[in-house]
Amino acid sequence: MVRISILYPNTPGSRFDFDYYMHTHMPRSIELLGAHPGFRGVSVEKGVLGGAPDAPPAYAAMCHFTFESAEDFMAAFMPHAPELQGDIARYTDVAPLIQINQIMLVR
Amino acid sequence: MVRISILYPNTPGSRFDFDYYMHTHMPRSIELLGAHPGFRGVSVEKGVLGGAPDAPPAYAAMCHFTFESAEDFMAAFMPHAPELQGDIARYTDVAPLIQINQIMLVR
Repeated sequence: MVRISILYPNTPGSRFDFDYYMHTHMPRSIELLGAHPGFRGVSVEKGVLGGAPDAPPAYAAMCHFTFESAEDFMAAFMPHAPELQGDIARYTDVAPLIQINQIMLVR
Repeated sequence: MVRISILYPNTPGSRFDFDYYMHTHMPRSIELLGAHPGFRGVSVEKGVLGGAPDAPPAYAAMCHFTFESAEDFMAAFMPHAPELQGDIARYTDVAPLIQINQIMLVR
């Protein structure tokens, strides 16, 4: 199982419209990617605090998609990449950091 | 519900001993933090690929603890902070990026 993490840097002065993200972008993403048989789940988190006392979070938002394999994710995502990536500018002006992870442990 | 994310930067030349992390550090962390009634779960992921083709992952490893509240996490963690933080140098020479997130959506 793999987890695709999409992290939005909390760059000072940057914009992140959580309302649009939660009510328009994510429902559409889940509709499109969740239709693939390799889809296993998704979570969205809002950054609240950094590690040091009173430090801002490094990321404004994190989104984690779980898929059976990286190939399944790519097969689910690629047909919809233009629409989903084209939507990013509607809710943020930062470029997300994306990485593919192997899930090693879940409790 | 909150998620505490601990991200280990994949700095070029840095060290990350996944064997020690998975077989010594994480079992002990789960033993100590999982005993708190506010503990809801944990996952560990190993970075495989970055977002661009053939790009290395930004993070060598990610660990996400789920707790009922940030207060519960702090109550669970603080008594064991010296032991758990003191163990980090045994598996890596990078400083983890830590942030506390509010969970907005889980599917």
